[in-house]
Amino acid sequence: MLTNVKRLDELMAQAELDAVVATSPENVTYTSGFWAMSQWIRRGPQAYVLWPAPSRGESCLIASSSALDLVADQKPWVRKVRRYEHFVVDRGPDATLNEVDQRQAVLYQLPDDGDPLNALCMAIRENGLDRARIAIDELGLLPGYFEALQARLPACTLVRGFELLRCCRALKTREEIARLRRAAEIAENSIAAALRVARPGASEIDVARAFHEQTVREGAFPVLGCIGFGPRSAMINVQPSDRKLQSNDVIRFDVGGRYQHYRADIARIAVRGEPSKKLSTYYHALHTGVRCAYEVVRPGAAASDIFLAVVNAVRSNGLPHYQRSHVGHGIGIDGYDVPALSPSSKDIVEEGMVLCVETPYYELGLWGLQVEDMLVVCHNGVESLMSTDGCLMTVAD
Amino acid sequence: MLTNVKRLDELMAQAELDAVVATSPENVTYTSGFWAMSQWIRRGPQAYVLWPAPSRGESCLIASSSALDLVADQKPWVRKVRRYEHFVVDRGPDATLNEVDQRQAVLYQLPDDGDPLNALCMAIRENGLDRARIAIDELGLLPGYFEALQARLPACTLVRGFELLRCCRALKTREEIARLRRAAEIAENSIAAALRVARPGASEIDVARAFHEQTVREGAFPVLGCIGFGPRSAMINVQPSDRKLQSNDVIRFDVGGRYQHYRADIARIAVRGEPSKKLSTYYHALHTGVRCAYEVVRPGAAASDIFLAVVNAVRSNGLPHYQRSHVGHGIGIDGYDVPALSPSSKDIVEEGMVLCVETPYYELGLWGLQVEDMLVVCHNGVESLMSTDGCLMTVAD
Repeated sequence: MLTNVKRLDELMAQAELDAVVATSPENVTYTSGFWAMSQWIRRGPQAYVLWPAPSRGESCLIASSSALDLVADQKPWVRKVRRYEHFVVDRGPDATLNEVDQRQAVLYQLPDDGDPLNALCMAIRENGLDRARIAIDELGLLPGYFEALQARLPACTLVRGFELLRCCRALKTREEIARLRRAAEIAENSIAAALRVARPGASEIDVARAFHEQTVREGAFPVLGCIGFGPRSAMINVQPSDRKLQSNDVIRFDVGGRYQHYRADIARIAVRGEPSKKLSTYYHALHTGVRCAYEVVRPGAAASDIFLAVVNAVRSNGLPHYQRSHVGHGIGIDGYDVPALSPSSKDIVEEGMVLCVETPYYELGLWGLQVEDMLVVCHNGVESLMSTDGCLMTVAD
Repeated sequence: MLTNVKRLDELMAQAELDAVVATSPENVTYTSGFWAMSQWIRRGPQAYVLWPAPSRGESCLIASSSALDLVADQKPWVRKVRRYEHFVVDRGPDATLNEVDQRQAVLYQLPDDGDPLNALCMAIRENGLDRARIAIDELGLLPGYFEALQARLPACTLVRGFELLRCCRALKTREEIARLRRAAEIAENSIAAALRVARPGASEIDVARAFHEQTVREGAFPVLGCIGFGPRSAMINVQPSDRKLQSNDVIRFDVGGRYQHYRADIARIAVRGEPSKKLSTYYHALHTGVRCAYEVVRPGAAASDIFLAVVNAVRSNGLPHYQRSHVGHGIGIDGYDVPALSPSSKDIVEEGMVLCVETPYYELGLWGLQVEDMLVVCHNGVESLMSTDGCLMTVAD
């Protein structure tokens, strides 16, 4: 199960909530296991999960009729479903249905609630929650829907719920960690595949294609593909161009796909030929910063202290003018989860968090360097999700 | 240029607007040529384009400081930029900057406007539009931002702008059509690559990987990959499983990636071995429906009339009980553009629209069949973006 049920129930109790409603794609999948394709690939299509507090009712999934096949096929752990919109699927008089189609046929027999807000209101009323205090994830609703929902449920107290769900998602379940582990592994394998084509004359686009092909081959979807050579590696979000690999070029990868909806975000550096003294020195400093995180990240550590420790490690190991706004962030079904490893962060690290720790350095006109590892916070420290050590790699000149 | 400037200015004049503001990723890229990565791969990050009516000021792009490298590299046609948020990029004292880095260095010298709404307010005020009537694309704003903007600009009349921009996007420019043509071609090539691995024993996942690998190889990003065998092909949004290809299986593809931000959405059917009489008859009816669209789609045609003509063609050519809620839609930088080819649609077809015309048929327990072509509306009819004819394909048994 993806949901951290214990934590969600605790957060709801703290906030004196009777229920939460997930509306954004990440939160709907997180709270139900249901991946509503149209909601993920476009902005606008609506799917929701009503999650009542313990003993306040039964969870309910709200889906468009045209997505009921995905409900039947994915078997989300939220069993109760309400559907909206008209959609036609035929069935021959003598058809023999397999298990998935039987479930689909049953779902199509549910009444059509008309529109998503109406379906959500029905689910709320059905659970006797029409005078309740409910947190609504405001990020996935269409503009005006929050107000429309309040108007339809005048006795409910509706508050914003996105931050609560984001906070819940910070502590990963076993299933989430397994997916993140595999996402990280695919990203590392894809960098290895990309480096195999990073020969003299290859372009950034050639290398990026090799990267994404490997990602697809291993069952993930391409998302982040910042790959730049030479001075282009100093562009934060560098998108692959036809720039060809030249002698002494830095190759910067800040990359990661999506595996079973979970994101990877890692960074590695290779250099063609011999690295300069300056490059080696700076790289050592940045790498030391990330290795420092392996020492200081543990349950109870303040994110702002981790920030200071990592930046100081970089500064005292060869890059004294190093400045950063953050040295990492959580990762999960979204690319930026809690915590933020920044100087102003109030976050405290807890067991079960999965972090990206990174020390990027961009110098215009020269190159960008970056080490970014994914790691899991354990009860007494951290476990790395990386199989490579983050040392500077070289490709033959 | 992606923007249909003439149409946008006309729509603004009709709505008596002094300016529009794009906020959703599709509309920001459409009105500026700027692709703000973080806005596209996550929900939350903000980028805007202020587009004043003719003689009401200068267009302005609003971007996070951490995205200025993309502005410098992509050279969007909106030249004026405002930036927000602190971000550090270093520069050696003796660095020689290439053209892109020079532009980036200039952009970093712009003042930091603090937050995206403040940057937008500054751009509006700078153009003397602080008492103007402005349409704000409501879909990309964070919840509460529309109201906050109105509070900061009390003398402005703010109205919703998403539909106006969507309506503008319906009539494609030459550049948009070129990208859609290539997106469609990549999707067809990817189906061909997928069918090469659709041998006995191959799974849906094997075939889908071959599909997406080809899409990546040709420079596009995977998006839509509904690929199902046998009874699974009757699931509308079927996601590839380990179901193996069996004798007489239908293989349904409803697929398409994103090429230079523009979407493809096409459908083709193959069958392993000899098709049954029923399959051949139904397929002929569905294919005739799509071919009928090539006759009836032309500038001035009502979308609802096209719907009727296509459904009637299917019904009178072998599938008399055919029912559908729509037989197609526009496509562009979003997968569902104007027009909607549905019975209740008020849309009128115009030259420059790009349509997906489709006649899917799903029969639970048996199979799903679907033909979906992409076509451009020309001054006297249509031009197909497909190189294959949409006939039923076979793979060896």
